Amino acid sequence: MLQYQTFELIFKGEEPAGSRSEIDLKAVFTCGETSKEVAGFYAGEGKYVVRYLPQQTGRVHWKVSGLFNREGEEKCLPCEDGIHHGVVKPDGTALKFEDGTPCRPFGTTVYAMMHQPEKLIRQTVETMLASPFDKIRTCVFPKHYIFNETEPERFAFEKKPEGGFDFHRPCYRFWDDFEKVIRIFDSHGIQVDLILFHPYDHWGFAEMKKEEYLPYLHYLLARFSSFSNIWWSLANEYDCMKAFTAEDWDRIDSFISAHDAYGHMLSCHHMIRHYDFAKKNITHCSLQGDAMTVEKYRNEFHKPVLIDECGYEGNIYCHWGHLSGFEMVNRIWYCVVMGGYCTHGETFMHPEDILWWGKGGKLYGESPARIAFLKEIVSELPGPLEPVPSTFLSLERLEEMKRGLHPEEVTDFVRAVMDMPAEEAERVIEDITKDTRIYTGHCGEEAYLAYYGRHCTAVGTLELPQAGAYRIDVIDVWEMTRKTILTGVKGKVDLKLPGKEGIAVLAVKEG
Amino acid sequence: MLQYQTFELIFKGEEPAGSRSEIDLKAVFTCGETSKEVAGFYAGEGKYVVRYLPQQTGRVHWKVSGLFNREGEEKCLPCEDGIHHGVVKPDGTALKFEDGTPCRPFGTTVYAMMHQPEKLIRQTVETMLASPFDKIRTCVFPKHYIFNETEPERFAFEKKPEGGFDFHRPCYRFWDDFEKVIRIFDSHGIQVDLILFHPYDHWGFAEMKKEEYLPYLHYLLARFSSFSNIWWSLANEYDCMKAFTAEDWDRIDSFISAHDAYGHMLSCHHMIRHYDFAKKNITHCSLQGDAMTVEKYRNEFHKPVLIDECGYEGNIYCHWGHLSGFEMVNRIWYCVVMGGYCTHGETFMHPEDILWWGKGGKLYGESPARIAFLKEIVSELPGPLEPVPSTFLSLERLEEMKRGLHPEEVTDFVRAVMDMPAEEAERVIEDITKDTRIYTGHCGEEAYLAYYGRHCTAVGTLELPQAGAYRIDVIDVWEMTRKTILTGVKGKVDLKLPGKEGIAVLAVKEG
Repeated sequence: MLQYQTFELIFKGEEPAGSRSEIDLKAVFTCGETSKEVAGFYAGEGKYVVRYLPQQTGRVHWKVSGLFNREGEEKCLPCEDGIHHGVVKPDGTALKFEDGTPCRPFGTTVYAMMHQPEKLIRQTVETMLASPFDKIRTCVFPKHYIFNETEPERFAFEKKPEGGFDFHRPCYRFWDDFEKVIRIFDSHGIQVDLILFHPYDHWGFAEMKKEEYLPYLHYLLARFSSFSNIWWSLANEYDCMKAFTAEDWDRIDSFISAHDAYGHMLSCHHMIRHYDFAKKNITHCSLQGDAMTVEKYRNEFHKPVLIDECGYEGNIYCHWGHLSGFEMVNRIWYCVVMGGYCTHGETFMHPEDILWWGKGGKLYGESPARIAFLKEIVSELPGPLEPVPSTFLSLERLEEMKRGLHPEEVTDFVRAVMDMPAEEAERVIEDITKDTRIYTGHCGEEAYLAYYGRHCTAVGTLELPQAGAYRIDVIDVWEMTRKTILTGVKGKVDLKLPGKEGIAVLAVKEG
Repeated sequence: MLQYQTFELIFKGEEPAGSRSEIDLKAVFTCGETSKEVAGFYAGEGKYVVRYLPQQTGRVHWKVSGLFNREGEEKCLPCEDGIHHGVVKPDGTALKFEDGTPCRPFGTTVYAMMHQPEKLIRQTVETMLASPFDKIRTCVFPKHYIFNETEPERFAFEKKPEGGFDFHRPCYRFWDDFEKVIRIFDSHGIQVDLILFHPYDHWGFAEMKKEEYLPYLHYLLARFSSFSNIWWSLANEYDCMKAFTAEDWDRIDSFISAHDAYGHMLSCHHMIRHYDFAKKNITHCSLQGDAMTVEKYRNEFHKPVLIDECGYEGNIYCHWGHLSGFEMVNRIWYCVVMGGYCTHGETFMHPEDILWWGKGGKLYGESPARIAFLKEIVSELPGPLEPVPSTFLSLERLEEMKRGLHPEEVTDFVRAVMDMPAEEAERVIEDITKDTRIYTGHCGEEAYLAYYGRHCTAVGTLELPQAGAYRIDVIDVWEMTRKTILTGVKGKVDLKLPGKEGIAVLAVKEG
């Protein structure tokens, strides 16, 4: 037994009599003071499995009960492969692995990866391993949508003779295949953000009832929660799933929290109205939309912010699926400098409709190389990035100026907004802040990373601490160049910049 | 006397005794049924001038009264130089010259052109003549602002010994010089959008009182309203001029309307809150901001829409002054395809602070060549462009769907917005419309011009009439290429597009 790696006990027996999803098999694993109760599952062909994800080293006692009653002990040794660091956890608004290693995921999306022919799945896995991406968002249920119109060979559950699916009869081959992929990704440190429900369906998975989704979740958790690289994404665009009520979502997120012994990351992705990230069970904000909103959600929920969908590099007709490579990279930079985590995707037209975002296969875009470059820059930072607050006019400051304070700051613009009703002033200030701001993040006083986006300014300013000495690098995010322009500087620093789109400035404390 | 060209009568006399701005000299010019009363002005050195802009051909009788009492007759011949077409007038939401020639201005901005050394003014004029720009926005009063910190040699009025300006003593040299430039532009068909007031001041021009601005306006109108290429822009960023009340602006626009015998174009440019374009005297909407709002203002005011400030190509530190060349071109295309008129500007850092937007000089940017290319395309259109309305979900359609109509259109997205309060639904629909829409204009059924902006789609659709046959050109707005991809098509046409930013599609009816 190795720390952070899935351990399993296998028992052979007869096919279960009733539900194959919810069987009477559980186990308690005890290491030191810590006990974990986990459910076992049936894997087909008389094979019963109990899985455990050891989080501590030392002697582990296990006791299986139910269909099998066994007991034993294992020694859990430290995992020293440099790849397994345990489950990802929130660390304030940042992320870290259980062993304390910082986690800075650069994810991508292949919604229907597991519903493709074997050969294509293999190609997707190969592409992932050769890419900068260390997280993948993918669905348990197949996708019925534009460019996703082929019928999968198999589903997570067997079909009932009378039609529909029997959620008490898992399709073992489907789960075995999925598991193989998860294991490969696990052995390469790639996180799997499993999407448990979604609306793009014509098989009935988007209309599952409680009696159907609970056995599914039971089986899912028993099989997959012992993988350290698993994240739970309750849904993609949950707000488009009209058959699921708020009560259903409550039941689902509570069920997962109660049955996941390891506290994997858990969130829910929306189309228009975001999920209630304030819920105790929800570990992070999983967002669709504007990659420039990281700070807003950090400030509101005090949890890590993942922009899981901000459009896709590609050339299909949908507006979300024909971003230029530069715009994909631009959005990811905007998210990352503010301490968010951003998910890539790609949707190039393909003669066989093999679009990365839906089916996987190969990547054709220009953004992955630039994402690799950003990842390298971020990996050298001494800690997670935090947003440097805007220095532009705030509503509070405006109120103060109305009372006669800071007369030196009362510009023509300030005079114009002073007369506005509060709501209008707020909107105007918000819009102009967004237009003018150079989004900047910092790691304490150790490093500052400013992203200029589409601002083609030839001059910039960085406000560094008065103490210490900093090295300043100018980064071209598209050309992937990086050049030190100043060393030994501190305080307010004027910068000479290339005056083009896609420039970033990194200041790192020297010595 | 030539139609559409300034005619003047000159009288010599003693220096006027009182105000040199408001003198007792007027004239009535009568041609057929039409009489125009105009004020004369004093040009210095004993020279009194009465000017007239003949709008009709035929016998013109004139009668001067006041300080001089003369009478005479002239024959007004048609102007056949192909350059003078008379004063620009609104034509619904489009523009035309008095003789019916369409006017499709491609303007630029040099705010403080006339407050620079003579050599620089000459260079600005040369640059204008070699550029695609056929309209210039420029101020009567000098500009005190970043990059505009030199003291002009002379002002429109003489300084008083005790400080301040004597608005009853024009600086004739200033007006002579200005007039020379206006005449050169007039002889090349370049419109001069004269900015009469603005807030960027440290001489007191932004705080003029009624007793000061009325003599100024009197003199200005007497000297300049007889030039066919003049437009009146009451102000730049009028809403930042706190010394001017709504009553002042009413008085100013009424004064101009009453004293301008020819009905030159008249509007007022804002910073945040636009002027009341519904006012009878206001001929058009003169806007700062989003170049994608043309349709909104057309629909609201039923007047021509000029986006007179949507940012500048350049590299200065201000967010409005460091657009990439592409973004400048992108905004202009967005405005133009919807039947608006868009004003260029340029702000590149310069060792002597000679930025085009402020002082003129040379153009360094990449956008003017692309604007010339667009101008050429637009010049071939059979008429003014009108917006093709959005086909995306409207609030009205949503209401109908709530009542059970159009069930086939009820997508997941529609279901999601259906539940929203009206205001939220409106905002969401507006935002998504803006993100998804391919902005398209049409000239009746003769031509359609669709601009794809940053949408990198490889496929597009055009909805053409079922009758007729159209030729389809794909235009690369940046590379300035144009390629016919289809001929003889009609109805719904699928298009193969390059899948990159800055693509436009032009469909023109054949035969």
